[in-house]
Amino acid sequence: MQITFLGTSAGVPTRSRNVSCVALRLPQRGEVWLFDCGEGTQHQLLRSQLNISQITRIFITHLHGDHLFGLLGLLATCGMSGHSQGIEVYGPRGLEQYVRECGELTQTRYSYPVPVRTVEAGEIFEDGEFSVSCAPLKHRLPSFAYRVTEKDRPGSFDLEKARAAGIPAGPLYGRLKRGERVTLPDGRKFDGADFSGPTETGRSVVYCTDTIYCQSAVELARGADVLIHEATFTRDDEHLAQRSLHSTAAMAARVAVEAGAGQLIITHFSPRYAEGNAIEPGELLREARSVFPRTEMARDFMSIEVPRHQPPES
Amino acid sequence: MQITFLGTSAGVPTRSRNVSCVALRLPQRGEVWLFDCGEGTQHQLLRSQLNISQITRIFITHLHGDHLFGLLGLLATCGMSGHSQGIEVYGPRGLEQYVRECGELTQTRYSYPVPVRTVEAGEIFEDGEFSVSCAPLKHRLPSFAYRVTEKDRPGSFDLEKARAAGIPAGPLYGRLKRGERVTLPDGRKFDGADFSGPTETGRSVVYCTDTIYCQSAVELARGADVLIHEATFTRDDEHLAQRSLHSTAAMAARVAVEAGAGQLIITHFSPRYAEGNAIEPGELLREARSVFPRTEMARDFMSIEVPRHQPPES
Repeated sequence: MQITFLGTSAGVPTRSRNVSCVALRLPQRGEVWLFDCGEGTQHQLLRSQLNISQITRIFITHLHGDHLFGLLGLLATCGMSGHSQGIEVYGPRGLEQYVRECGELTQTRYSYPVPVRTVEAGEIFEDGEFSVSCAPLKHRLPSFAYRVTEKDRPGSFDLEKARAAGIPAGPLYGRLKRGERVTLPDGRKFDGADFSGPTETGRSVVYCTDTIYCQSAVELARGADVLIHEATFTRDDEHLAQRSLHSTAAMAARVAVEAGAGQLIITHFSPRYAEGNAIEPGELLREARSVFPRTEMARDFMSIEVPRHQPPES
Repeated sequence: MQITFLGTSAGVPTRSRNVSCVALRLPQRGEVWLFDCGEGTQHQLLRSQLNISQITRIFITHLHGDHLFGLLGLLATCGMSGHSQGIEVYGPRGLEQYVRECGELTQTRYSYPVPVRTVEAGEIFEDGEFSVSCAPLKHRLPSFAYRVTEKDRPGSFDLEKARAAGIPAGPLYGRLKRGERVTLPDGRKFDGADFSGPTETGRSVVYCTDTIYCQSAVELARGADVLIHEATFTRDDEHLAQRSLHSTAAMAARVAVEAGAGQLIITHFSPRYAEGNAIEPGELLREARSVFPRTEMARDFMSIEVPRHQPPES
């Protein structure tokens, strides 16, 4: 799982930061999932290493334009680029109406299915490899955080060990790989579990925006390997965060601490913190690190491989 | 009047060309008018020399997303940037509903009035300095071309000539400037017209997109100083133009010839004509120039001062 930030500015684009979008690349299935789709997301994709034709799911946190206004343009472009598989879109109530009405008025046609799913708290997607769940946040209109959980994978089959035990190659290896118990013609018995490496623990990523500090974000982010959390303001501007229901960098870090997250990446920065201004962007990072040291600050096109986080032993 | 191209690609953005927008700067009144507003227009404005706070009117040709999907984001950003005067938006039927419904669903608020005017063929705006009229085009959904006409301005008052004639400075100069006839205390009579330089002929710019060749474009562009016309395809791909109701470069040039335009600027190029492809973008320019030599090819951020075109004597 690889995270790429495509937009890290709050409200309006700046010369160096676009409005919100985060891409999650899942190399094992050749898919890209997007979280939010601010205006210009398709332009950012053009400038990234990501392949637009791999997009299969788009999760929208809430209906504010800086998280949404790139959606229809991207869906239309995917159609013109010969995207043939469907793109499933998830988001709060109202999203389906937005996609349908804007699509009709602008006669936007897709050459592939675009189902829009209205989300509620809980699990919203699940298959053999991944599950996605969401939780309500605290913002000026309904907003949801998303958690993507990779399922644990059985360890790889230890071929050398099987050979060393004198088990003849062939169909027996397949049964052992599946964890079955087998009996050889000479009467010896083996358990598949003894030939399997350690289970590969699934990783998890949580995306929380837009919101002021809230307990449901902490619950959703419990033990996550990577928590991406908005940090629109600094502590000095907490009155602005309170008024607009956004987070300070300290609030984002508090969520990471309380959730026991492996790593925090802050994003969604107010353009007021530009280089040369009274408060510079680096202050957001310093503030968050003073509460939760394992914090990084997102920038557009920053890309990280999601690490496996070992939660502290309790 | 200064034209700046902010998007010159058809349908989808490329790395070097955004989707449609043309800005017309009117320095004499400190205003910028936009024609179309494709996704990413506000991003292009950030990278241009234009001042977002000077935007007062936005004219939309038709409701296809590549001409429209930047509108709400731009209007929202103008609000957040402290834009206080209103922005009037003009366009075909359906635009008002689009702005209203998208605005409501996304809770987009403007801190200034945003009236949306539904246009029909004919004059749609007029004041002491400018008029704007529009004409229907021939596309897959209702589409309008716009013509901006700068009114003629009286020549400047020839102060030296008035002094040389021995007319005493003071209120009499004001009356002569206004073209009145005056009688001096010594009985001499003067006509303001004799002290005025030649009338400054107003200029005109016509913006035609999306359309296949049509007679109403020729009528609207009659004698225009600058005609901006879409040229999505080359003559070799005329079947694509016929199918999608777009123009070839030759069709755009034919409109310029038949209208007796001063200059043609082609724009809205299919991304299929990229450098290195079977047909390169330069072919569009060659094709148009073979029909109408005074043709230029738009590129993003290209800016030109509208010249005064002297129509050939009939």
